[in-house]
Amino acid sequence: MKIAITGKGGVGKTTFSGTLACILAEKYKVYAIDADPDMNLASSLGITKEITPISKMKDLIKERTGAEPGSSFGEVFKANPKTSDLPDLLSIKYSENENLKLMVMGTVEKGGDGCVCPASVLLKALMRHLVLKKDEIVILDMEAGIEHFGRKTAEAVDLMIVVTEPSSKSFETVERIKILSKDIGIKSIACVLNKVSNKEELEFAENNLKKMNLSIIGCIPYDKEVSKADMNREPLINYKNSKALFSIRKISEKVLELKN
Amino acid sequence: MKIAITGKGGVGKTTFSGTLACILAEKYKVYAIDADPDMNLASSLGITKEITPISKMKDLIKERTGAEPGSSFGEVFKANPKTSDLPDLLSIKYSENENLKLMVMGTVEKGGDGCVCPASVLLKALMRHLVLKKDEIVILDMEAGIEHFGRKTAEAVDLMIVVTEPSSKSFETVERIKILSKDIGIKSIACVLNKVSNKEELEFAENNLKKMNLSIIGCIPYDKEVSKADMNREPLINYKNSKALFSIRKISEKVLELKN
Repeated sequence: MKIAITGKGGVGKTTFSGTLACILAEKYKVYAIDADPDMNLASSLGITKEITPISKMKDLIKERTGAEPGSSFGEVFKANPKTSDLPDLLSIKYSENENLKLMVMGTVEKGGDGCVCPASVLLKALMRHLVLKKDEIVILDMEAGIEHFGRKTAEAVDLMIVVTEPSSKSFETVERIKILSKDIGIKSIACVLNKVSNKEELEFAENNLKKMNLSIIGCIPYDKEVSKADMNREPLINYKNSKALFSIRKISEKVLELKN
Repeated sequence: MKIAITGKGGVGKTTFSGTLACILAEKYKVYAIDADPDMNLASSLGITKEITPISKMKDLIKERTGAEPGSSFGEVFKANPKTSDLPDLLSIKYSENENLKLMVMGTVEKGGDGCVCPASVLLKALMRHLVLKKDEIVILDMEAGIEHFGRKTAEAVDLMIVVTEPSSKSFETVERIKILSKDIGIKSIACVLNKVSNKEELEFAENNLKKMNLSIIGCIPYDKEVSKADMNREPLINYKNSKALFSIRKISEKVLELKN
């Protein structure tokens, strides 16, 4: 099963993605993929060691796509690079959990380096051609906002989870995502409501999502343990009493129901 | 003076940009530019009427850059399109305030439409060639994260304001922005600390920013009026008792000191 996590910046995509990956890795083999140029999925997984992002593997990108990473806009890419050996080539194993592997698309290394299209092309091809075994799950933490829909990076996923907080700006993004995900052929889309502090916010959110005809597969309450985990640069999975962790665990069960 | 507002997604860039624009427009002519494909600056300014984004002006982009918007990655763009008539051509006047004009770069209209490079190229050229009168200010609300640094959209600004909330993930973005802004030749960079709820968070933030050698030009407290404004889809400037508005007003004075 391939799952993409999207949403407006700051709604909690990465914390959700990382924590979901940790939970699912208790029983499944999980590839967690950080597709955000402003990457920080590793810290949500509790991985502190240095990771070489795909965008830095210049020889590999050149070999597979024909493009130099960091080249100017006007370059032609191979749309269908070979990808079958990439999962093992690109991912690192999370030392504390044999089941969890991380892959990082990469970042803008230097101002003026051009857009991240070449690395995106490779990632898109990888997502399309990756054949998963029954006990394997891919979790793709997308970049904030909607530009990646232009590039169709997530077109081959089985489920898109849109994370939203109870704010009008965040719902505007959800609405755009709903339309754009249809354009790129995503069949299954569900919402996770995050950072809900009170009943008023919950109602406000439910009303807005109802209007958009989107199903909510879970609601995560505002939880100080999440900021604590962030400040200590620790994964939320270590905070056993976190209410947010409890909610994400419930969501993971619903995700697995969709899988089967 | 040309100011770019950057930062991680969700830290409050757009609310800050929009409110700063409203305040400065009390005395100056302000061009507020929404450079985020996941655009919502208009609502922070209290503008509800439909705006045609630059990316939708296909004939104009084709004429000036030689590229079709929504074309695939492998197209060559003119790097120096004519821009002198663009400010009047592209911006709309905010009906309630003669001094405030809004320009919207545009969004991904359809999934699979390609990246937003062509519209970015036009905006970059505009920023570079725009000659401002003494009483004119440009406020550029950038997209979340750091990809725009690869495209150098903001290279011609006089001041970059990085908005951050007190979280490790947000500071990671600040650190990347600091390095990348040097690469593209930004001379002046300052931090605005947003959504600070208590002393502990303030200290946590100050310590982190100190390590990065960044000056803080203002601190905006966590303020429920901001969510209220968002839920009601009204600009914060209408909430006269907002503590956040008060802080942004103080920051605007510091920004004007830097201008003179």
